[in-house]
Amino acid sequence: MGPKITTELLKQLRQVMKNPRYVQEPVQAYIVPSGDAHQSEYIAPCDCRRAFISGFDGSAGTAIVTEQHAAMWTDGRYFLQAAHQMDSNWTLMKMGLKDTPTQEDWLVSVLPEGSKVGVDPFIIPADQWKRMSKALRSAGHDLVPVKENLIDTIWTDCPQRPCKPLITLDLSYTGVSWRDKIVALRSKMAERKVMWFVVTALDEVAWLFNLRGSDVEYNPVFFAYVVIGMNTIRLFIDGDRMMDPAVREHLQLDSTLEPEFKIQVMPYGSILSELQAVGAGLSPKEKVWLSDKASYAVTEAIPKAYRYLTPYTPICIAKAVKNAAETEGMRRAHIKDAVALCELFSWLEEEVPKGTVTEILAADKAEEFRSQQKDFVELSFATISSTGPNGAIIHYKPVPETNRTLSVNEIYLLDSGAQYKDGTTDVTRTMHFGTPSAYEKECFTYVLKGHIAVSAAIFPNGTKGHLLDSFARSALWDCGLDYLHGTGHGVGSFLNVHEGPCGISYKTFADEPLEAGMIVSDEPGYYEDGSFGIRIENVVLVIPAETKYNFKNRGSLTFEPLTLVPIQTKMIDVNLLTEKECNWVNEYHQKCREVVGAELERQGRHEALRWLLRETEPLARGQ
Amino acid sequence: MGPKITTELLKQLRQVMKNPRYVQEPVQAYIVPSGDAHQSEYIAPCDCRRAFISGFDGSAGTAIVTEQHAAMWTDGRYFLQAAHQMDSNWTLMKMGLKDTPTQEDWLVSVLPEGSKVGVDPFIIPADQWKRMSKALRSAGHDLVPVKENLIDTIWTDCPQRPCKPLITLDLSYTGVSWRDKIVALRSKMAERKVMWFVVTALDEVAWLFNLRGSDVEYNPVFFAYVVIGMNTIRLFIDGDRMMDPAVREHLQLDSTLEPEFKIQVMPYGSILSELQAVGAGLSPKEKVWLSDKASYAVTEAIPKAYRYLTPYTPICIAKAVKNAAETEGMRRAHIKDAVALCELFSWLEEEVPKGTVTEILAADKAEEFRSQQKDFVELSFATISSTGPNGAIIHYKPVPETNRTLSVNEIYLLDSGAQYKDGTTDVTRTMHFGTPSAYEKECFTYVLKGHIAVSAAIFPNGTKGHLLDSFARSALWDCGLDYLHGTGHGVGSFLNVHEGPCGISYKTFADEPLEAGMIVSDEPGYYEDGSFGIRIENVVLVIPAETKYNFKNRGSLTFEPLTLVPIQTKMIDVNLLTEKECNWVNEYHQKCREVVGAELERQGRHEALRWLLRETEPLARGQ
Repeated sequence: MGPKITTELLKQLRQVMKNPRYVQEPVQAYIVPSGDAHQSEYIAPCDCRRAFISGFDGSAGTAIVTEQHAAMWTDGRYFLQAAHQMDSNWTLMKMGLKDTPTQEDWLVSVLPEGSKVGVDPFIIPADQWKRMSKALRSAGHDLVPVKENLIDTIWTDCPQRPCKPLITLDLSYTGVSWRDKIVALRSKMAERKVMWFVVTALDEVAWLFNLRGSDVEYNPVFFAYVVIGMNTIRLFIDGDRMMDPAVREHLQLDSTLEPEFKIQVMPYGSILSELQAVGAGLSPKEKVWLSDKASYAVTEAIPKAYRYLTPYTPICIAKAVKNAAETEGMRRAHIKDAVALCELFSWLEEEVPKGTVTEILAADKAEEFRSQQKDFVELSFATISSTGPNGAIIHYKPVPETNRTLSVNEIYLLDSGAQYKDGTTDVTRTMHFGTPSAYEKECFTYVLKGHIAVSAAIFPNGTKGHLLDSFARSALWDCGLDYLHGTGHGVGSFLNVHEGPCGISYKTFADEPLEAGMIVSDEPGYYEDGSFGIRIENVVLVIPAETKYNFKNRGSLTFEPLTLVPIQTKMIDVNLLTEKECNWVNEYHQKCREVVGAELERQGRHEALRWLLRETEPLARGQ
Repeated sequence: MGPKITTELLKQLRQVMKNPRYVQEPVQAYIVPSGDAHQSEYIAPCDCRRAFISGFDGSAGTAIVTEQHAAMWTDGRYFLQAAHQMDSNWTLMKMGLKDTPTQEDWLVSVLPEGSKVGVDPFIIPADQWKRMSKALRSAGHDLVPVKENLIDTIWTDCPQRPCKPLITLDLSYTGVSWRDKIVALRSKMAERKVMWFVVTALDEVAWLFNLRGSDVEYNPVFFAYVVIGMNTIRLFIDGDRMMDPAVREHLQLDSTLEPEFKIQVMPYGSILSELQAVGAGLSPKEKVWLSDKASYAVTEAIPKAYRYLTPYTPICIAKAVKNAAETEGMRRAHIKDAVALCELFSWLEEEVPKGTVTEILAADKAEEFRSQQKDFVELSFATISSTGPNGAIIHYKPVPETNRTLSVNEIYLLDSGAQYKDGTTDVTRTMHFGTPSAYEKECFTYVLKGHIAVSAAIFPNGTKGHLLDSFARSALWDCGLDYLHGTGHGVGSFLNVHEGPCGISYKTFADEPLEAGMIVSDEPGYYEDGSFGIRIENVVLVIPAETKYNFKNRGSLTFEPLTLVPIQTKMIDVNLLTEKECNWVNEYHQKCREVVGAELERQGRHEALRWLLRETEPLARGQ
């Protein structure tokens, strides 16, 4: 597929940027961020405004359109994809490279004096607004909220906002009732002396009430806001979803409850007026707790003096530490997921040599095998099924125009995952169905060494994930290689596949310390543009580590892999592994055999079981 | 020495906090930061106000005195020392521990409503003022500048501000003339479109003019400010130092010069009025560049709209990248320093068993041997000469009351360095003059593994030092051990032994990327309170690394040790080293032999040469 032709659209946008029907004064630039009103990473089709105006549909990017220019900021995962999808009206701004200007610096360099820069106040997070507004003001420009979204005014066939039925989760999945979660939240509020808490992130709403939805593809969430007071709960949600008896029962909407647990249901669109009413009724010392990533619109509804902003909300932090029921669910989900992938890889091993398997077919087969597993709901993100040069496009998704046939001559990279009612998975394996070159094996082995260095790392309680990032790169660095993405992200429990507040990245400095019970991915890689991509990803659980000593009684942590899918030994240059690394691989494969082997046996999947046993033969050093 | 008794002093301070002669309105709290008006880490005796009021004389700490409380914030290096030096009037706030409140949070928790918090505006950096002021204001209090320093009003025998002669450095030491440095600075100013630059850091003034002083012990700097315009240079400095013919010649004060290189000399005390005059004469778009760490007083002299603040000044960044003349000077200085230490350790080996060597005597001997070397100026910091439990006090300095005798039964830690006209040194060696226990050797070997992991690390151009910090800890972490300080700091070239903008620490996120030519220390450690301390420190130069591949043509970097002093092999448990680590030690020792051995030979120091040869015998694994 060629790039999207945007000449006409940009012309229309530039017209509405001056149209008094939509803007009080003409704006000389208009910012189109990625997100929706909840700062979601994955968004509903009606919120894909940046993709609509530019053609670039990666998960991260910000478009800015001025009278003369159109520019797109995105990160290393998407440099190639964005360059493919955008036409020559657009300038690609490669974030993370030394010479790339920030959005603010770029705006200042191109805008005429005294410009107005417009943005939808619901779409821009308050912290970004603040930074951008300050930088523009100090250069003599103004950032202005444009109430009507200007993209929506030119998007004639914009899809409707989804409003799908809800799923209720009982205690066997969640471990804690929504009432107990509210109690814990109110105690955190009391600790910080705040009277109100506004939940704006969709996964936080879903987690708090033990509800799931399907308004956004891949993320089991639903459009809603919540405002929690010390004695009130207001849920802002649209549609007849609250008419579902199971939901009414789950939320005890028709029961006689203590007033502080009585949920008032209100229309989604009334959040701003209700918040303004809350804000107007505040007395001094009555603070309102908000994420500093909440939208500018929601944040501004509360007078500045009453706001209590934090980078991570208490829900975000509580949600990240999985309880026993959630951890057990995640384990079950990962075993089922491994069964599906053993089926897939066993099938690919048979079929690839015939030359009939395309990237899309492989992705569809992966979904088919997953959907056979119990409690499967949907995929957790768009499957990255990529072979040869497509593997170097870090967040590639096969489409008919790029669809490549798997062969015995190219490396195949599959990054995929699913939502099960008991957990969320995300796994990457890189395979060769023929004979890999010595260079491919060398690169794969460096990536594996990095993967093991993180997975086997022991570190003190209180360590932030970003301090582990270099462990994943050290073997690559030694040979002058690297990869341009982070090493890991938090993973939700039947929730978003990317979640805060923890992660493993050289970029993230606001991450919270890792704690036992947190779940993150470990996914170093190596990519050669035009040739191949390698990535090895497991989802890992933070667990206490036994150590010989215990400095200052701090205790230590390490990781336990939840993902149990063989790592292709054919791709490993065993001579590059240390004894310790070799043992790690063998012990990991032994566990795959035992745990996934038993489940394959139970499910009667004998072909896949034979594949698993072959693929988990122990490595011997000095081969 | 027992703690300083501060009851009377605190009473006096609390009186002046209410005395209308000094404060417009009474202040309920008074902050006494560490620094001087230049935010120096090492300060002149007249600026040791925090030590005067509290007794705690470590290099980092902030005191806050309220009507009821007196509290001291300091970091892990100083927990033990501060606890020893302060009486029971003081509460120690251990920074970096989870439950320690920030100064702001603590103030908010103890102050009565609507309090005023006073601070000397020359002593508090503008960025700290801003953060503190904001936090206090949002809790209903006010941070107020108190023009007269309240400590000075009660410090009856406060020493005079030093005003010592200057040293001029010619091109063979500096590589670049001060005129060329001014030209480079003005070109950076033009790039950023600023018209003025204010130099407030003492080492930046010294570096810019290729001058050195001795106003502050250990740091060869002098009290001065500089204001650089595109066509003017104003140097604010006191005393008759500008009458010295060598200085006049060096600065070409009596030559006919292009006006833009003509230096106007003004009194030190006139900086504020001159800056206010500059500020008043600015037209829009005429910005003034300041460090965001400049004092609140200096920063406030420039109207907010005209300030251009950055965390690191262009001088700070240029100064960090040493040129060929500076690097060669640093190499020479480190060879001379190694000669002195070989003499010392050879002497200690003889004398310690006799039981006559104390920590102070060992430190004095180290200074004596260093002072015999060419171009020796002074020490670069107070020698840390510590044995047994004193070694666990991370920044210990022996005084008669704590002075311990070195013995064959305890570990001895010596962290010391000197200023030579050609360079600055800083080296730590940990020795045992008897037979170390298996546990001591084990801990030493983990620290050594961390030291090597950093020193031998290969990493891409553009990497920030903090990404290397975990390499230094990994071996300790594996066994549940750690150390509560950073791993490395920038080192000046015959300048401050601690300098920005680079470093290696889990704490520093504002560090600038490492570049070839930068010089940092590599100094992991391990400390057991009440037992012993271990640290292994080399000063290392960032150099380009040869790698097998070169991802995105970014190039790679690594370190070359400048310090060439044997690491005691007796303390190493060779079985814990990998082959690579073992080779690193052997190659390092081979270089010590060759380079330092030749110099010992040249200087006719045969005893020390024999010691060097013995101490650098190759390790053999499997011993």
